Amino acid sequence: MFSERIERLQGSLVREILAVANQPDMISFAGGLPAPEAMPKLDFTGLPDNLSQYGPSEGEKWLREAVAAEMNKNGVRVTADNILILTGSQQGLDLSAKLFVDEGTPVLVEAPTFLAAVQCYSLYGAKFVEVGLTPNGPDLDELERKIKTEKPRFAYLIPTFQNPSGVCYNEAARQRVAELFDEHNVILLEDEPYRELVYDKCDREPICARLQKAPWIHFGTFSKTAIPGLRVAYLACDDRLMPYLYKLKQAADLHTNRQGQWAMHKLLTSAEYPEHISRLRNFYHQKRDIMAKALDRHFHDLADWTVPPGGLFFWLTLKSKIDSYALLEPALERKVAFMPGKPFYATSRVSSDMRLNFSHASAEKIDEGVEILADVIRKHIKALG
Amino acid sequence: MFSERIERLQGSLVREILAVANQPDMISFAGGLPAPEAMPKLDFTGLPDNLSQYGPSEGEKWLREAVAAEMNKNGVRVTADNILILTGSQQGLDLSAKLFVDEGTPVLVEAPTFLAAVQCYSLYGAKFVEVGLTPNGPDLDELERKIKTEKPRFAYLIPTFQNPSGVCYNEAARQRVAELFDEHNVILLEDEPYRELVYDKCDREPICARLQKAPWIHFGTFSKTAIPGLRVAYLACDDRLMPYLYKLKQAADLHTNRQGQWAMHKLLTSAEYPEHISRLRNFYHQKRDIMAKALDRHFHDLADWTVPPGGLFFWLTLKSKIDSYALLEPALERKVAFMPGKPFYATSRVSSDMRLNFSHASAEKIDEGVEILADVIRKHIKALG
Repeated sequence: MFSERIERLQGSLVREILAVANQPDMISFAGGLPAPEAMPKLDFTGLPDNLSQYGPSEGEKWLREAVAAEMNKNGVRVTADNILILTGSQQGLDLSAKLFVDEGTPVLVEAPTFLAAVQCYSLYGAKFVEVGLTPNGPDLDELERKIKTEKPRFAYLIPTFQNPSGVCYNEAARQRVAELFDEHNVILLEDEPYRELVYDKCDREPICARLQKAPWIHFGTFSKTAIPGLRVAYLACDDRLMPYLYKLKQAADLHTNRQGQWAMHKLLTSAEYPEHISRLRNFYHQKRDIMAKALDRHFHDLADWTVPPGGLFFWLTLKSKIDSYALLEPALERKVAFMPGKPFYATSRVSSDMRLNFSHASAEKIDEGVEILADVIRKHIKALG
Repeated sequence: MFSERIERLQGSLVREILAVANQPDMISFAGGLPAPEAMPKLDFTGLPDNLSQYGPSEGEKWLREAVAAEMNKNGVRVTADNILILTGSQQGLDLSAKLFVDEGTPVLVEAPTFLAAVQCYSLYGAKFVEVGLTPNGPDLDELERKIKTEKPRFAYLIPTFQNPSGVCYNEAARQRVAELFDEHNVILLEDEPYRELVYDKCDREPICARLQKAPWIHFGTFSKTAIPGLRVAYLACDDRLMPYLYKLKQAADLHTNRQGQWAMHKLLTSAEYPEHISRLRNFYHQKRDIMAKALDRHFHDLADWTVPPGGLFFWLTLKSKIDSYALLEPALERKVAFMPGKPFYATSRVSSDMRLNFSHASAEKIDEGVEILADVIRKHIKALG
């Protein structure tokens, strides 16, 4: 009764865990939820009546212009005509899958990568080509080799504060990726939801700004810096791709809700917005440091990790090669939620990695939750003998 | 560089014409745009802060409950668990295409049918099976024959004030369609965007309420009765389909904007809403009657039509078998926009049909526009000799 792709339809483990993690007595390191106390106040005062009518599929001109201005500041030379407003950046994954993915299309991703991208491209039949990550970006030799042998149609990369690993590509890696993609005509899909959440100095110029020839799409969102419930995000892309993405957007939901676009534009262009971003960085920076200390205290003999220079996550690799998935149930029983590593890999494997979010739990609860997690792991190892 | 489906990607002629028709001196009968003066006022006063966070993929519980209550009033026995909130009902087309359509999947549609459905199902590779319409519903003999010979996986039907034809299935047609679908296990996709815009007494009980066995999805929207710019719509479906549609929704855009859901729920459950709907019906009823008179005056020798008992459109069939597509350019030059029949047919053909919307143009402009259109047609026929 169903289409063939339904055999490849996966649910989201994050959303399943979040459903459990929403209980009030749970300490949740599971989601990528921004802290409610760090969100700006939404203000619909002055909302124009004429936004009640159907709107343009590409999004409101004033919002596209504001986004284009922001991207130019980051080194990407685009105009409003290169911007498409999206109903959340999840929609960007779906539109790009429609544009590029047939059954068996080789798609290059980082290992680990964003699990919703794996779900989305899987649904359309992608065959994943994985490239490992180092603290400075992808393994460049492996990247070159796999581009040559596997001929991926496109690469989906998260160069800045990668989810889940926290890696930020350094300048050399960004430059080399751009050169390889230009040379082999690999389309770049660059996802940067976390780029504004920066705590330590690091290279953040988008890779798409360095491309000379290869087609590219860059995804951005306001969900991590402002109001996720609005579902307002955007993509920028080169001129060759926009006519297709525009039509795909039209066929997907006609256009993004206009009131949300208006409220987001009002926030983005308000005098207080830079101050909000700066407060947000300080707030998360502090939380990152609190979690770093808690990990030093409770995990020093249990796992390896790098302190992420931005973003929302610590990525731990357990020293003892146990399956971190097996820790989920005992941790949830002790009222602590986290994400095991497994679903972040595009191809099936046992993983002893864990992703811990530090933005959502209160400062006081972070140490408590990390201590409980460490205890769960020690008991698990002991029980295994 | 692109996926195979991109060869099947179509733009929307409606949206192209609307772009032209948006000029202030244009009389537009082209779109399905609700009249701005008939829209309720949006009010975000009291919007709760906790809706700023990510929300549930299925939509807000209170909105799903309100929708379920409404559907029960219409004879469809569902609970909130059968309701999925959509980012506009266009999204329902996309999710259902993902659920059911592979390349070559036979999909049954009315001839003519909603052109965005044709675009959406085409993109996924549907092979259309068309069934003609009579003033009382589909040609039932043709429907039975095509179900038996073509074995469509599902049928996409618009039984109430069909777009574009204005047809409302009578009770016998609704009952017979349900029996045939149950007997041959054809999945029903029932789209009812116009059901509340009723001007004359007619049968409106959804066909899905009459099904005993066949799976079904019912699409509804607030875009025609309230605020299209919000992009808040819904589907109801039977228990067997929801787990799949839920995951597909999650992969499409995570969830629909929460502020829009809240504002729509506030409107829908306000004491003034029934009064708003009744005012809206009167307003469009008057416009329909104005266009009916204008057509009697200017088109009596040019076309055949039935006065639609609801909805937003007149569907004219020109007596002289000219291609109505050829009238578009001369009409636009005279500052009148309409929709030629051709794009409403799932399989390519020359059409002498025209769709005229009566909701958007002002009462005064309707007669003027219809008179100009008639003149354009007469001149065109004369020029053809």
